[in-house]
Amino acid sequence: MTADTAHFQQFDVTTQPSQGVTHVAALRAEMRKLGLDGFIVPHEDEHQNEYLPDANERLAWVSGFTGSAGAAIIFMDRAILFADGRYTLQSREQTDPSVFSVEDFHANALSDTIAKAARGSVIGYDAALISPFSLNALQAAADAAGVTLKSVSPNPLDLAWGAARPAQPMAMIVPHPLEYAGAASADKRAHLASILKANGISAALITAPSSLAWLFNIRGGDVIRSPLPLGQAILNNDGTAELFIEPAKISDGLLEWLGNGVSVAGPQDVTTALKAYAGQTVMIDANLSSAYWLEAIKAAGATALTADDPCLLPRACKNEVEIAGTTAAHIRDGALLSTFLHWVATEAQAAFPTEIEVAQKLESIRRTAGDLRDLSFDTISGFGPHGALPHYKVTVASDLKTAKGNLLLVDSGGQFLDGTTDVTRTMAMGEPTAEHKRMFTLVLKGHIALATVKFPAGTTGTHLDALARQFLWAEGFDYDHGTGHGVGVYLGVHEGPQRISRALNKYPLQTGMIVSNEPGFYKAGEYGIRIENLQYVTEAEIPAGGERPMHCFENLTWAPIDRTLIDVALLTPAERAYMDGYHAKVLELVGPLVSDEVRGWLMQACAPL
Amino acid sequence: MTADTAHFQQFDVTTQPSQGVTHVAALRAEMRKLGLDGFIVPHEDEHQNEYLPDANERLAWVSGFTGSAGAAIIFMDRAILFADGRYTLQSREQTDPSVFSVEDFHANALSDTIAKAARGSVIGYDAALISPFSLNALQAAADAAGVTLKSVSPNPLDLAWGAARPAQPMAMIVPHPLEYAGAASADKRAHLASILKANGISAALITAPSSLAWLFNIRGGDVIRSPLPLGQAILNNDGTAELFIEPAKISDGLLEWLGNGVSVAGPQDVTTALKAYAGQTVMIDANLSSAYWLEAIKAAGATALTADDPCLLPRACKNEVEIAGTTAAHIRDGALLSTFLHWVATEAQAAFPTEIEVAQKLESIRRTAGDLRDLSFDTISGFGPHGALPHYKVTVASDLKTAKGNLLLVDSGGQFLDGTTDVTRTMAMGEPTAEHKRMFTLVLKGHIALATVKFPAGTTGTHLDALARQFLWAEGFDYDHGTGHGVGVYLGVHEGPQRISRALNKYPLQTGMIVSNEPGFYKAGEYGIRIENLQYVTEAEIPAGGERPMHCFENLTWAPIDRTLIDVALLTPAERAYMDGYHAKVLELVGPLVSDEVRGWLMQACAPL
Repeated sequence: MTADTAHFQQFDVTTQPSQGVTHVAALRAEMRKLGLDGFIVPHEDEHQNEYLPDANERLAWVSGFTGSAGAAIIFMDRAILFADGRYTLQSREQTDPSVFSVEDFHANALSDTIAKAARGSVIGYDAALISPFSLNALQAAADAAGVTLKSVSPNPLDLAWGAARPAQPMAMIVPHPLEYAGAASADKRAHLASILKANGISAALITAPSSLAWLFNIRGGDVIRSPLPLGQAILNNDGTAELFIEPAKISDGLLEWLGNGVSVAGPQDVTTALKAYAGQTVMIDANLSSAYWLEAIKAAGATALTADDPCLLPRACKNEVEIAGTTAAHIRDGALLSTFLHWVATEAQAAFPTEIEVAQKLESIRRTAGDLRDLSFDTISGFGPHGALPHYKVTVASDLKTAKGNLLLVDSGGQFLDGTTDVTRTMAMGEPTAEHKRMFTLVLKGHIALATVKFPAGTTGTHLDALARQFLWAEGFDYDHGTGHGVGVYLGVHEGPQRISRALNKYPLQTGMIVSNEPGFYKAGEYGIRIENLQYVTEAEIPAGGERPMHCFENLTWAPIDRTLIDVALLTPAERAYMDGYHAKVLELVGPLVSDEVRGWLMQACAPL
Repeated sequence: MTADTAHFQQFDVTTQPSQGVTHVAALRAEMRKLGLDGFIVPHEDEHQNEYLPDANERLAWVSGFTGSAGAAIIFMDRAILFADGRYTLQSREQTDPSVFSVEDFHANALSDTIAKAARGSVIGYDAALISPFSLNALQAAADAAGVTLKSVSPNPLDLAWGAARPAQPMAMIVPHPLEYAGAASADKRAHLASILKANGISAALITAPSSLAWLFNIRGGDVIRSPLPLGQAILNNDGTAELFIEPAKISDGLLEWLGNGVSVAGPQDVTTALKAYAGQTVMIDANLSSAYWLEAIKAAGATALTADDPCLLPRACKNEVEIAGTTAAHIRDGALLSTFLHWVATEAQAAFPTEIEVAQKLESIRRTAGDLRDLSFDTISGFGPHGALPHYKVTVASDLKTAKGNLLLVDSGGQFLDGTTDVTRTMAMGEPTAEHKRMFTLVLKGHIALATVKFPAGTTGTHLDALARQFLWAEGFDYDHGTGHGVGVYLGVHEGPQRISRALNKYPLQTGMIVSNEPGFYKAGEYGIRIENLQYVTEAEIPAGGERPMHCFENLTWAPIDRTLIDVALLTPAERAYMDGYHAKVLELVGPLVSDEVRGWLMQACAPL
């Protein structure tokens, strides 16, 4: 939540390239005191979470770069910022080239740089900011290159930031009622405890904020755009647990809600608590935790076993109550989005608002519902060439006015107590061109293929990704992002382990998993197209004679897809029937929830092709 | 090659379940002398190759099971045979249940069994028969279970087999001319040497028979159904090499062919030769080599680096000469196969031959060409219920007579100097049923989808597998084997690293790679369907306006697909056009090579749908 209660979103420019000059200098002064020749600045923070509180935006502070992923290495004579393909342009615009060179942030970017560092040099890192999995790769590169990796705490960046650093967030942690969670924390803990016990594990150290939220049926507000509580927990193999959170965050009734099986202590008590497990086995997730915690388990004299966070799969496979909740939230949000789309199709086609005005209008409509807790991310409101930047974040400095003859791409979502939404619609301003229609329809065909596929147990998102791309590939096009990500229920809008993408993902799609279906096409400097619905895995109906059970996706997102952008001649009869069926259901579910005026428009927008 | 020059294939039953009683007893007697409580018998031999010389068929000797993959663990009080889903039925039929229990051969089958073995027990293995990669997993399981894994040499099975064991093969090794290989060995070695050098590696120890064949442009005959030489080589980072082969296998002119850059020594000289690399780095493939060789490198005082066999990718990406060769071989083989299909469509529909007669007829037709070096595998000739066994190998004991009203599945291939073929056709005997036609057409739609897909750089077979399955999935069906495997050029019919399957494969499909396209459907106890062509990766033509280069597949296999089994109503216009185009090209390429009678039939068999 932001301090501004009238608006969740801010559009100010929050960093300047020039800050790199002073901040890097201040960092180097602290590095010198510690005898470091280099220092690694990851984007991730102590909680290894995607979205960060302001106090942990270390990469932005040192470089000016505000992307949601990346890293930097600061040497005494040079500084390298790593940003991935989504952020090529933005990373160069936001940083001072006299301070930072920008390089591609691929999987081995940091270790390759360490491998090329001067033999004998000392590179510092903060074990609290890096996962054991990542650290292993860096250590191997350092060993081969004769470089010393040195863990430093407190780290020189925090020392350099000093008093100017914002305070850590202190949002209250509140119960998440059973009517939304669908399963009691004690039952979740008992189930996971039985698995720990069967594997000879005494306890699991859980550090992922979304796992804390799910396991204890609690929500917080420490991280913007998501109801995540920050802290740690130890889950014992008898189902009891110790939850480590700031005492100031304990809301009225929280302790009663947690119950007798959960004791609560402060963040400083974790290392002491671990000492009780000396000689026993404690598990930790080497991908989701900080290396600091793996070391803490070992320092306590316990045997550290690295394995998947035990909450990972149970959280991903939503129960029936969660599915019912998010289904309801999506229908309500579909009515809000349809009201917005009506505005785009009518008033906006005359007034031609700016990108910020579009984002503000959508937020104001979502707020009318009264139950919006937050947005699930800052709205991507990209017109024309800005639509071609898949992760565009509009600011007052970039704000474009919409105009006839190009496309408006709006990717947005809301956090409701019963669900988290994420939807992208692309709309024509004025009359679309034949090229716009062709490319939109190729994207739509991929979206439909993924929406309608049936697949057997064991199938992962890696196997399905090509279904969404095949029509673009056939014409010589592609898009440079994944096709779908997991989504939480009143939790993070990006949630693992399931994913639909080319990356080799080993986690089969299982009943109750929510994924986005968002193929796109981006013509650099001209326009962008993305069509995104959320959908969840369920059991498919099999035609008579079929031998094997199959999964399929059930759709969650209900809002019209711009008919003026569809070239019907490119659709098969089955694809056309899918679109007509989808729109008929939008009208059925959302129609009763919107104003008469919007409903009148919706009937046209949802008419058969 | 077999001793019988008139026929490559034998159909005798070569093992009996009863041999398990005596052979296991003999093995246990030797185990007792070595103080072993258990002994691991992999299917793989010293060369970690798929097909084995008779002398190395250890798993078949001890158990009676003749499948192409599997393993056993012999304890003093029980014996377990592991066989995968393809061999469930066969493994039970071929073994004595009073000696062997049969379990599923999944990835962790052996380590799970070791994990459950009695604490303190000693399980033996032969390091020459197991890869370092597999051994690591077994060692981890043994450590956790308090079991001792003990390397034994000579191994107790070979001791028990004793004088009855067949001699090791001694087929001559001959030059493989440049007109087929397309690149000189010296050039291949220089290229790989530069990569070794750039990575600070002194030499690579190469043990894969197909890598020896490719790197030195030689062929052998030690392994049935493939022209592989058995041996080892050390490739130095200056392009010179030492090849270790039995002196008796050196054919006239071979040493001149190998040239000055290659010295030749006997198999017993490898460990001595490795001592010259003490203090240097020697690389070895931990998946394709025996653990014995990794240990030998370490014992020589060298640093062992495990990485992919450097021949792996260059061998997989065929050069233009190899592609031209295999293209020509496939057209000639298409004429031979079409002659066979004509026989099935005419004479066989009156005489109703047995499965063995079908396989013999096909072999006799392939032999008429005069240039057939071997079959590329034993023909799978499966009628009706036997067609439902994807890896069925007919014997005199199983031989079914074909009859009206069911399907005949024939999967076969030939080894020619210029190429290796592998093709499956399924034919109706008499009139096919509506169900036969429906299922055949669903399989065909998947085959066409994979034959016609375009895809960008970086795509692996894992991404494409679902394209071939989607139509079966939609109706509640699937098949339990991969969709495609790599294929060599006058080398093994199964070749990595590329593969089209659900297994997560990290190797992108690259220009020149050959893969099979063989979706299927199997109705247990009734019939089987498989449609298989080979195809290779090439550059796709992109429609005007397309932005990105794409790969596609070029077809290699030309022989009619049974039109009477195609339900045209289930095909899209594009699929129907593909089939008509395919058949037109079959007629164009193969028509001129067959007899007038066959050509007359071919014109009907290739007529538009």
